Amino acid sequence: MYGEIITIGDELTSGRALDLNSRYAAKRLIDSGLKVTRITSVGDDREMVTEALKRAMEVSCFVIVTGGLGSTNDDITSEIVARALNRPLVLNEPMFQLIKSQLAALGMQMTPSLEKLAWMPEGSKVLNPGGNCSGFCINEEDVYLYFLPGVPGQMRYLMDKVVIPEILCRYDTLPVIRQRVLKLYGLDEPGIAELFKKLEEKTGDVVFGFYPKFPENHITLTLRGDDEPWVVSELDRVEIEIRSLLEPYLFARGDQEIEEVVGLMLLDRGMTLSAAESCTGGLIGDRLTNVPGSSRYFQGGVVAYGNDSKVDLLGVSPKTLEAHGAVSHRTVREMAQGIRRHFKTDLGLAVTGIAGPDGGTDDKPVGTVYIGLAAKKDLFSEKYRFWGKRKHIKSNTSMMALDWVRRYLNGDPFLPGI
Amino acid sequence: MYGEIITIGDELTSGRALDLNSRYAAKRLIDSGLKVTRITSVGDDREMVTEALKRAMEVSCFVIVTGGLGSTNDDITSEIVARALNRPLVLNEPMFQLIKSQLAALGMQMTPSLEKLAWMPEGSKVLNPGGNCSGFCINEEDVYLYFLPGVPGQMRYLMDKVVIPEILCRYDTLPVIRQRVLKLYGLDEPGIAELFKKLEEKTGDVVFGFYPKFPENHITLTLRGDDEPWVVSELDRVEIEIRSLLEPYLFARGDQEIEEVVGLMLLDRGMTLSAAESCTGGLIGDRLTNVPGSSRYFQGGVVAYGNDSKVDLLGVSPKTLEAHGAVSHRTVREMAQGIRRHFKTDLGLAVTGIAGPDGGTDDKPVGTVYIGLAAKKDLFSEKYRFWGKRKHIKSNTSMMALDWVRRYLNGDPFLPGI
Repeated sequence: MYGEIITIGDELTSGRALDLNSRYAAKRLIDSGLKVTRITSVGDDREMVTEALKRAMEVSCFVIVTGGLGSTNDDITSEIVARALNRPLVLNEPMFQLIKSQLAALGMQMTPSLEKLAWMPEGSKVLNPGGNCSGFCINEEDVYLYFLPGVPGQMRYLMDKVVIPEILCRYDTLPVIRQRVLKLYGLDEPGIAELFKKLEEKTGDVVFGFYPKFPENHITLTLRGDDEPWVVSELDRVEIEIRSLLEPYLFARGDQEIEEVVGLMLLDRGMTLSAAESCTGGLIGDRLTNVPGSSRYFQGGVVAYGNDSKVDLLGVSPKTLEAHGAVSHRTVREMAQGIRRHFKTDLGLAVTGIAGPDGGTDDKPVGTVYIGLAAKKDLFSEKYRFWGKRKHIKSNTSMMALDWVRRYLNGDPFLPGI
Repeated sequence: MYGEIITIGDELTSGRALDLNSRYAAKRLIDSGLKVTRITSVGDDREMVTEALKRAMEVSCFVIVTGGLGSTNDDITSEIVARALNRPLVLNEPMFQLIKSQLAALGMQMTPSLEKLAWMPEGSKVLNPGGNCSGFCINEEDVYLYFLPGVPGQMRYLMDKVVIPEILCRYDTLPVIRQRVLKLYGLDEPGIAELFKKLEEKTGDVVFGFYPKFPENHITLTLRGDDEPWVVSELDRVEIEIRSLLEPYLFARGDQEIEEVVGLMLLDRGMTLSAAESCTGGLIGDRLTNVPGSSRYFQGGVVAYGNDSKVDLLGVSPKTLEAHGAVSHRTVREMAQGIRRHFKTDLGLAVTGIAGPDGGTDDKPVGTVYIGLAAKKDLFSEKYRFWGKRKHIKSNTSMMALDWVRRYLNGDPFLPGI
């Protein structure tokens, strides 16, 4: 079943906003075994919206349209759709009553801008799975057009609660499509391509995709077929082949982030972690604490941006700072030991470096980063050189540091530094 | 001059990747006074790419196409374009030599996958402003088609160095288009809409856009005209009207983030800041240190995820924790004072709360957050209730905390809590 997505809004064609909705809709549709052939973004422009709708209806079985359904003046989707499909705009009585009763519950009165939400092209079916999210569906020439609000939370709710179930129910002869994602860190595109060549004769019908997502690289394995057990076992077979080549660069599968992988490993081993951050400024702690339940293994950290705090809060020796500088093997090792001691954790992770754009020297250019890890009987440090802007250097440093924890707990060697 | 953008890649129509390239291209084109009518994303599919190209050429003066120009097997753009435009794929000798010499400098040999980069549709003009970024341009039926790589860094470099200058040079009779962005925090969409009604008769030809960007709300003011001084003075006039209504919710203009605004204010006053973070886990420090030069005012912080570290590293009294709990007015005040004392800064900012999904109680449900700010002679705290998932609560908490610093330095009242 082929469908497409149209997102409406001047904020999209002007580059003001990222089109998160089309990505979400596409992902949900693909994961449900449906296919998305095209995503089109147009401004709040009658002509462009009309053309996009008509073109979509020529080739697709269903169309997801988001945006322009709110109560403000630039929300003109309903009106445009009514004209494009030659259907008058009518007051949808059930919707009007729903808004009214919701307002009454809040002790509020109907206003013209809220009433606008109840005016829809004739023949629209209201989508309202509860709550204050609503959209509408029109069946025109055997194509199902779904109109959803542009607010991401509402759009996602309607997508999951109504749109996907309706579409799946309508077309029950889906081919089996399964996709897997493998996430890699520490190998570049040419490196991966070289390794993949060795696989060429072993991959059968599995289709590969390659998606750099700085600083990670993601590989997708997609397979279609009539028979689910065959599709799954084929994917299993190919995944094992890939693992034999790409371990230990493979740090996660599916939607997992490195911080989740590290968290599960720590939980599994009953171990705790603390972090001493200089150039990352708190990013490592932020990432670790994005995982629900992280308080069970992440005890906290110190953001030691200046030298004073490296001495006072982490116990780095002033002599070390004087002799070797804040960005050095010795300092990062003392930071790792200090944070481990202060927080009484099994592991102490530390980073110090120059995120730029200023502060670089010939000896230690921007992007120079030291990573350190202290455990009861172990103490490691490495020097790295990262590239890019400040945020790239911070992001790459946090990734490398978290990957150190993964590799340490796995018994894998660390990625080499310089 | 109307143009459009086509992005190619299965990762886009499958929702695997966010389409950052089209956003960047759209923004750069709009900022240069050009108009983007449509953005289309299609998979690595011959038919869809061909159709998108042909349709774009019917209405546009220029088309920016990104993706599928790399060296791997799924990079099929050149081949598809050659067929779509009925031009043979030929080896571009200058490009071939360029790749060869770049490889030689690295002591490497030409490989078939790298040679592929030099095969282009006949009549292509190589875009290579230096470095290893390249794309090509084809002039077909008076439409200029620009083909750029999908790697964001390379695409942006070519966009800025070649594409925008070439297009601007080609059409020198641009209408004047200027857009301003005002960023608001603490007012919801209906609240803003109500205030805007008061402006209705004072806004002239200025077009407003409204873009929720959680937890912020952005407003754009756009005006087109023949005469730049008139456009600018009209925008100035309307902006002043808006400021008179929406201060102090207006925390930034243009691309500025709250952390930059706060940084500039601290620099201006010669003041320093430190942060004690519990539920945000380091996010406040991460945001502050995203700003180049932040080491001049941000001294660092402590991520005190457990109670022990609140006592040991921040000097929160164990009695306070016992009597009031970690999520309380008293604790957040002691955290703010403690971090200020430890880092010897002018201001000490502190947050403690329950980010969820677990840990909530009837008394303190998930989303309950306390914010505290300590200065030499001041000490404030407030209780808030934020909504959404863990990341939303963390993000909203960090925004509110940073906005507290802005409001404190401005002499504005803090946003009320519960």
